Amino acid sequence: MSSTWGQAFRITTWGESHGGGVGVVIDGCPPRVPLSLEHLQTELDRRRPGQSEITTPRKEADRAEILSGVFEGQTTGTPISIMVRNEDQRSEAYNEMATKYRPSHADYTYDAKYGFRDWRGGGRSSARETIGRVAAAAVAQQVLRSLYPDLEVIAWVKSVYHLTGTIDPAAVTRDLVESNIVRTADPAMVGLMTDLIKEMRSAGNSVGGVVECVVRNCPPGLGEPVFDKIDADLAKAMLSLPATKAFEIGSGFAGTLLTGLEHNDPFRMENGVVHATKNDSGGVQGGMTNGAPILFRVAFKPVATVMHEQDTVTSTPHENTTLKGRGRHDPCVLPRAVPMVEAMTWLVLVDHVLRHRGQVGVGGVIG
Amino acid sequence: MSSTWGQAFRITTWGESHGGGVGVVIDGCPPRVPLSLEHLQTELDRRRPGQSEITTPRKEADRAEILSGVFEGQTTGTPISIMVRNEDQRSEAYNEMATKYRPSHADYTYDAKYGFRDWRGGGRSSARETIGRVAAAAVAQQVLRSLYPDLEVIAWVKSVYHLTGTIDPAAVTRDLVESNIVRTADPAMVGLMTDLIKEMRSAGNSVGGVVECVVRNCPPGLGEPVFDKIDADLAKAMLSLPATKAFEIGSGFAGTLLTGLEHNDPFRMENGVVHATKNDSGGVQGGMTNGAPILFRVAFKPVATVMHEQDTVTSTPHENTTLKGRGRHDPCVLPRAVPMVEAMTWLVLVDHVLRHRGQVGVGGVIG
Amino acid sequence: MSSTWGQAFRITTWGESHGGGVGVVIDGCPPRVPLSLEHLQTELDRRRPGQSEITTPRKEADRAEILSGVFEGQTTGTPISIMVRNEDQRSEAYNEMATKYRPSHADYTYDAKYGFRDWRGGGRSSARETIGRVAAAAVAQQVLRSLYPDLEVIAWVKSVYHLTGTIDPAAVTRDLVESNIVRTADPAMVGLMTDLIKEMRSAGNSVGGVVECVVRNCPPGLGEPVFDKIDADLAKAMLSLPATKAFEIGSGFAGTLLTGLEHNDPFRMENGVVHATKNDSGGVQGGMTNGAPILFRVAFKPVATVMHEQDTVTSTPHENTTLKGRGRHDPCVLPRAVPMVEAMTWLVLVDHVLRHRGQVGVGGVIG
Amino acid sequence: MSSTWGQAFRITTWGESHGGGVGVVIDGCPPRVPLSLEHLQTELDRRRPGQSEITTPRKEADRAEILSGVFEGQTTGTPISIMVRNEDQRSEAYNEMATKYRPSHADYTYDAKYGFRDWRGGGRSSARETIGRVAAAAVAQQVLRSLYPDLEVIAWVKSVYHLTGTIDPAAVTRDLVESNIVRTADPAMVGLMTDLIKEMRSAGNSVGGVVECVVRNCPPGLGEPVFDKIDADLAKAMLSLPATKAFEIGSGFAGTLLTGLEHNDPFRMENGVVHATKNDSGGVQGGMTNGAPILFRVAFKPVATVMHEQDTVTSTPHENTTLKGRGRHDPCVLPRAVPMVEAMTWLVLVDHVLRHRGQVGVGGVIG
Repeated sequence: MSSTWGQAFRITTWGESHGGGVGVVIDGCPPRVPLSLEHLQTELDRRRPGQSEITTPRKEADRAEILSGVFEGQTTGTPISIMVRNEDQRSEAYNEMATKYRPSHADYTYDAKYGFRDWRGGGRSSARETIGRVAAAAVAQQVLRSLYPDLEVIAWVKSVYHLTGTIDPAAVTRDLVESNIVRTADPAMVGLMTDLIKEMRSAGNSVGGVVECVVRNCPPGLGEPVFDKIDADLAKAMLSLPATKAFEIGSGFAGTLLTGLEHNDPFRMENGVVHATKNDSGGVQGGMTNGAPILFRVAFKPVATVMHEQDTVTSTPHENTTLKGRGRHDPCVLPRAVPMVEAMTWLVLVDHVLRHRGQVGVGGVIG
Repeated sequence: MSSTWGQAFRITTWGESHGGGVGVVIDGCPPRVPLSLEHLQTELDRRRPGQSEITTPRKEADRAEILSGVFEGQTTGTPISIMVRNEDQRSEAYNEMATKYRPSHADYTYDAKYGFRDWRGGGRSSARETIGRVAAAAVAQQVLRSLYPDLEVIAWVKSVYHLTGTIDPAAVTRDLVESNIVRTADPAMVGLMTDLIKEMRSAGNSVGGVVECVVRNCPPGLGEPVFDKIDADLAKAMLSLPATKAFEIGSGFAGTLLTGLEHNDPFRMENGVVHATKNDSGGVQGGMTNGAPILFRVAFKPVATVMHEQDTVTSTPHENTTLKGRGRHDPCVLPRAVPMVEAMTWLVLVDHVLRHRGQVGVGGVIG
Repeated sequence: MSSTWGQAFRITTWGESHGGGVGVVIDGCPPRVPLSLEHLQTELDRRRPGQSEITTPRKEADRAEILSGVFEGQTTGTPISIMVRNEDQRSEAYNEMATKYRPSHADYTYDAKYGFRDWRGGGRSSARETIGRVAAAAVAQQVLRSLYPDLEVIAWVKSVYHLTGTIDPAAVTRDLVESNIVRTADPAMVGLMTDLIKEMRSAGNSVGGVVECVVRNCPPGLGEPVFDKIDADLAKAMLSLPATKAFEIGSGFAGTLLTGLEHNDPFRMENGVVHATKNDSGGVQGGMTNGAPILFRVAFKPVATVMHEQDTVTSTPHENTTLKGRGRHDPCVLPRAVPMVEAMTWLVLVDHVLRHRGQVGVGGVIG
Repeated sequence: MSSTWGQAFRITTWGESHGGGVGVVIDGCPPRVPLSLEHLQTELDRRRPGQSEITTPRKEADRAEILSGVFEGQTTGTPISIMVRNEDQRSEAYNEMATKYRPSHADYTYDAKYGFRDWRGGGRSSARETIGRVAAAAVAQQVLRSLYPDLEVIAWVKSVYHLTGTIDPAAVTRDLVESNIVRTADPAMVGLMTDLIKEMRSAGNSVGGVVECVVRNCPPGLGEPVFDKIDADLAKAMLSLPATKAFEIGSGFAGTLLTGLEHNDPFRMENGVVHATKNDSGGVQGGMTNGAPILFRVAFKPVATVMHEQDTVTSTPHENTTLKGRGRHDPCVLPRAVPMVEAMTWLVLVDHVLRHRGQVGVGGVIG
């Protein structure tokens, strides 16, 4: 179990779906950063269940409590502990999970690793764990905004199943994304995607899709070769989210269909600054930012809980059986995945900014 | 700069293209593992330049020296230091790089980060750095074979530019891959891919492609949620390699075009073992291995050095200029990328095996 | 701020004296270890204030809550979050601390580092922070007892001010230590030490002393040269406790008054086991345990809060002033320091046991 | 085996007494710091054997080679690899060590841990390993001098066996220490100490002693509570050196003989700066520097190799035997320990300076 992210801005998440609660401890946060519970709650509300007609109807207020590290509205530099109590728990909906492994969930693998698991609601593998990440990212966002007021991280739903939006990353705004319950950036797709997700729920089935994310006004030079390249850390961050299967940055897989001459991003001076005239690199070269927007995509598989009988095995002893999903679940995680992708991006960025400042100081390019 | 990988089996690579050499220090290696220079050298030879007519003609023997941590043919448990001296260096071929940034290379970003760079041959961003990784992985391989004799890691070239092999991952053998200089696993593609790469070189251009990799006979339960999931660490490992732009595991991006019912991998008992009857999960569920083969793909962009005039800027002061690639370069990194992908996979696996043994011991499922 | 201890069994403490509470998150705990709240509470009660007539009269029940990582009375292998709410808080007793630095406390240094501090009750520098350590150590103790049932960690008060006990470390039992409120292991000293501490309190003054600690039945081979030697980690662990000024193991400073011939510990076989016939090494040679008892001593300075006017400076702006201690304080931390020393020892041991098991496995000597 | 020190300025040492060499890799060094081989060599020469009539007569030039991370006389921000080849090796002098454990050495404990050891010259437990530390510290020193030109680290021999110097730490200069081969700071003691060490060598015996160290002009606020307190890290750093048994800072053990009123260090303003009017704290309060000199002492036990028959056991199988020391050894490590103590101090300081800069930036008090 490794529940710590980051080297300079270190977060440790804890908690299971049906235990006492979930939370996070942030260690290494800079002091004297303004922090309010309201800002935290706003970000948590974007992630919480029951927020719209296409997410799970589970009602959890997800009210955060800041237990330490903040005094008179400012961070003190000491560990910030944030907790959200668990509420709307119906363990009985999961009783069958005590003895049967849900296909393509983590039930079997937790047992394989630890020989034991908290089966209630998926235990530690529940997406509820991401509450700690989103809360920590809200703090990270405050830290970064105090250093780089123009820095932006915006994610949106690029596709749901076969429905793909037509989206210019440069034109997407947070308001546009938040204006619809799918959190897509193509207004023409909102109705279609909403209907598709509802249909899937009616059919007891589920769908996945792709989230795209842009980081704008990121200073050049962020990232630490050779292992902690910024794109490597983003890849890990995204694959650490539940239900993710793929990551690509800039041209991604499609970049292999270009020649070097086509793929290379020429440099020109623009307003006294080195500027890449196109961005197949996705804002990252040699593992460090080059000042162009960081642009990447993440694939989320269809939700594994479906309301149909499926082949599986029992836990002890192992025997063939079948299992049909029950309970209240998202038929599509994409709308709620958007704030999770943004959260992990903020966490990657803040860690690299502080690490850069440690090694290179403010006399460097980043400032 | 972060040049350390792993928590239990920790490797630290060092070295630039044109300095005194490159190398690696391995800390945390189990004691009493047989280790020979010959085995090390075999793996390094698969990576080195000049090995075939479609790689760079640079001649570097890449002779490794084991400086510590091995006594009477066995590891001692103390740090293993391995060094390869630099040889065939023609700095003059790179003189222009001192003052001009090569497009889509790391020249600008190193300057942006550190305000200074060793420009000779790409310095630290040279793929020559991966020698340390491949050497360390050869040690990791010995450690893992001593614990899991059947464990296999095999990578191959899946596609070059628009040429895609028809390959059944279950049928690929190391011998098949090593039987051709492209290192593809589709014999029908060898000639076409070879010709394509030669053409690209003649045209002063370059191509990329996709490497696919399988891990067979991996014990279930490897990986540490929530952040150090095995797929998350593989994603980071691959994106830390030079020229990579994308990673996908199992169904990957294509998995978003399936419904949950289609995507889920049912379990059945087979020979007394829990068995996934298909493998869209790519061998990983909830960030831990489930005993099925781990299967993933990595995109390598076309080589950035092309022999054509391209727009760029000068380093000090920044002014518009043009630059044409020179020197001896791979027109396609794919054949030499295969051992690099395998190396990073071995390193991810060995670290997780030792960490698992630390937390759970041998009384667990992994043994 | 670095609030994480350990690499394999990692604990992160959080909390201030007068915030929402204090707590700890344990990551990397082995699964399937029995854990009860009662055991936790027993250890916390040894540390809490108000337990006897010679500790601070502050009344804090220090009731622990286990929020995650435990299911059906066993650890699950996932993060264990433990919290204790703050209770008997009288911030007004500390109002003067908002503007004046208490001499030999951490008020000035926190301001010097962070430019800001939570001044209530010492904030993060309060010994209340050690609640998280003691709670985590109670878990560590359960883990170690499941592996080494005979392993013992016992600390006691060796001296208070000029009063030094005559104590044979081999003969000390936990019961002997707990039989008196001073937690000394020399019954003849109990009355004298108790009277001295009471006198000091009456005089508004304070005293320090030395805690001695033994680890019995520790397997040989624990510790990781060259930096994470077991004695190096013990030294750091002890100096990380509030009010400590010195650490010595085995012969310690007095060992410099012996020649090599006198100091060396000869080996003899005893019951088929390698045995050191004397123990000036303190159970550690070359940074690893040799099977003999680990024996070390820790100096605690006299409590800095005294009820006399002392020279100091104000915080903003800095000006000369005086300050007289107020509030309810321990006149001597030694009795409550005993469980803290034991706690840090358990934490050092458990981390090294798990790390050893990871690198060397159970085929090694340790088992 | 844990051979890495530091979180921001990370060093990894490698090498055994009789293998290919010893060395260090430094990761995280700030870029654009002037670095010359000459400076490195000067520090290594203070540590090397054969430098005077009271150290071992082994002749090793200990010539360093910088293999990476430095370009045109400046650090590049990439890993700096430094190597020293082994030379004057007489393995035959150690043949008996292959089968017999030297008392109070690390022979038995290495076997107990790893089941195997490189017995030649003590292998990894040889003080030769500290070459990597001293080399890395020479780099750290350059980094710190570029930030704090007045920062000084000076260590000296306080006592040898029963001979204790009368020394005012405030008055000691590097020149004074280097003016005599004992490296004591009391000129009156030079002759006595030299004679004592020579006598011990003649008698085939050995002695230990105490090294004292001061850090002057250290900025306030260095150190990271609660675990990485600067005194905790110094304690660990010192106990990680070979042959050390004790550490104390400021008043140390003697501080337990003072009352709180006597021990507290009052603050007064002096030249506009907060100033402690005495320094029983040893420059550290609450784990962070307060601007006063850091002052600490380290006990080194008498050298374990003595030229007399001593009881011990054989390695395989374990049987009682005797062993008499042979070869060329220091009769007293103190003179050569002085640069080692300074080296570890520089390494602790540089890591904390960079970490502080990362978390708090240059807007803080440290600047």
